[in-house]
Amino acid sequence: MSIKVAIYGYGNLGKGVECAVKQNDDMELFGIFTRRDPAAVKPLEDNVKVYKADEIMNFKNDIDVVIICGGSATDLPEMTPMLAEHFNVIDSFDTHANIPQHFANTDAAASRGGKTAIISVGWDPGMFSLNRAYANAILPVGHDYTFWGEGVSQGHSDAIRRIEGVADARQYTIPVPAALERVRSGENPELTTREKHTRRCFVVLKDGADADKVREEIVTMPNYFDEYDTEVNFITAEEMACDHSNLPHGGFVIRTGTTGFDNEHNHVIEYSLKLDSNPEFTASVLAAYARAAVRINKKGDTGCKTVFDVAPAELMNITPEEMRAHML
Amino acid sequence: MSIKVAIYGYGNLGKGVECAVKQNDDMELFGIFTRRDPAAVKPLEDNVKVYKADEIMNFKNDIDVVIICGGSATDLPEMTPMLAEHFNVIDSFDTHANIPQHFANTDAAASRGGKTAIISVGWDPGMFSLNRAYANAILPVGHDYTFWGEGVSQGHSDAIRRIEGVADARQYTIPVPAALERVRSGENPELTTREKHTRRCFVVLKDGADADKVREEIVTMPNYFDEYDTEVNFITAEEMACDHSNLPHGGFVIRTGTTGFDNEHNHVIEYSLKLDSNPEFTASVLAAYARAAVRINKKGDTGCKTVFDVAPAELMNITPEEMRAHML
Repeated sequence: MSIKVAIYGYGNLGKGVECAVKQNDDMELFGIFTRRDPAAVKPLEDNVKVYKADEIMNFKNDIDVVIICGGSATDLPEMTPMLAEHFNVIDSFDTHANIPQHFANTDAAASRGGKTAIISVGWDPGMFSLNRAYANAILPVGHDYTFWGEGVSQGHSDAIRRIEGVADARQYTIPVPAALERVRSGENPELTTREKHTRRCFVVLKDGADADKVREEIVTMPNYFDEYDTEVNFITAEEMACDHSNLPHGGFVIRTGTTGFDNEHNHVIEYSLKLDSNPEFTASVLAAYARAAVRINKKGDTGCKTVFDVAPAELMNITPEEMRAHML
Repeated sequence: MSIKVAIYGYGNLGKGVECAVKQNDDMELFGIFTRRDPAAVKPLEDNVKVYKADEIMNFKNDIDVVIICGGSATDLPEMTPMLAEHFNVIDSFDTHANIPQHFANTDAAASRGGKTAIISVGWDPGMFSLNRAYANAILPVGHDYTFWGEGVSQGHSDAIRRIEGVADARQYTIPVPAALERVRSGENPELTTREKHTRRCFVVLKDGADADKVREEIVTMPNYFDEYDTEVNFITAEEMACDHSNLPHGGFVIRTGTTGFDNEHNHVIEYSLKLDSNPEFTASVLAAYARAAVRINKKGDTGCKTVFDVAPAELMNITPEEMRAHML
């Protein structure tokens, strides 16, 4: 029987989940729940039902798992515990500093309701976290490095858009190749912020805006840009629409470590992602963990989990026998 | 309380486990069990106890987990089920075609004894298998590629040593860079054996041996070399000892896949290892899974497992709270 998935929130991430569910033949989309007027929401497929967000409580017995596609700042801290009491849920909560609190709130709600929640699912947190964990377990003596990009940072793009005279902006975070090579060589460098990443900005100016002034405001912006080497390019609205409409991202998780009686042997474990669409890839990770949440709940294991608590077999759409025969 | 680890079999892998246990501060080495004369076995550390292999049955209550360091051809199919009835065990069984049978035998024995066994632990099978599984779960529409090397293949080195006139040999498997690049580009190439890997051989000849004849025998050897581009280099015994005494290895697991309504976005997930010492790295993976076997057994989950069945948290020497706060 198919796993019935509900999407709660329908922006870029929710659309990605709609696509991801289609790729998994053991899942079907129950419907989309939105805080907007349902009539104004156009799913990618015509036959998908769209409901008002609070109608979801009418379908407690019909939905196997809810994938919550809200923002980490204000949506998820409220939505995830609220829904976790009544449904198995997945979210992509990514405010690292607040994860312990979000975990505690969600764990209390899910435990109360006998449901299973998996939070902070995606690629960072998510697949990158997993790779940090495995690499640390295997090589207890070593160093961790995470590089992000090449990819669009929404937060940095938004920060540029708030500058007077800016009509639109897109900011790419780019790992410095020389820093990556130093890490891979096993020299265990201490890298400054500036040495690890550069920031490349594409900006559309409003009529009459002063380019030099905008450039200066960007490169000196505290926290966002002042500690980086920042490149600012001015382009037309047409170029922006044509060349920068996708949301690529990715990055590298590297652990270098040593083994041997005198730690004389070096090892490099590297995991990397190169993603054409950040939200669609994140959505694909969410879909795999949605399968796991349903299975884990059926085994009676309730409460809040993270990717660390989920055995890889729970994610897979093949039997344990097939896994051992073909994937091990 | 420390996890008491026994090493069963003391070759390169067993020595690696001795080093790995030293790096994990929640583990201690109970002792080494050998089929050789214990007096002839010299552990790396002086205070390590060495016992005859069959004495292990006297220590059923003293050992938390046995790491079995035998060969996959004849040792492990016998040793692992035999020991799994009485101890939690880990092995690195790597004869892919026989994994289902080895799993069934070990599962029956471990279940009978109320013990937990984890088989086929290492990097391939092991970490590479995990990465194939995660990537397939996330990107159901895509292609898998595994490349091995640059590293020493023991089986191919042994095959060369059996040729008349050869005193010693070392064979390196090397991934073809152009093939790697084609895979990473997302073009989903169909690659022949010859296109994926080359084989580089270093050979020490016996006095009076015919180099041309040895070279011809190598490059035409069925299965081992005839389907590859093979390079043969003749060197002195001194060069062999000086330049080829380590056992480096590694490789790449890559999955390319698509997402989006029309599968219009490409993604590349890549995991790679660059290892100075194949046996020491494998041993480090075994040690991490030894921790997991003990924990899983304490939870009452008995029988045979593989890396697919073990949640990452079970491998970690930090608490779930620390994991969520610092690694997620």
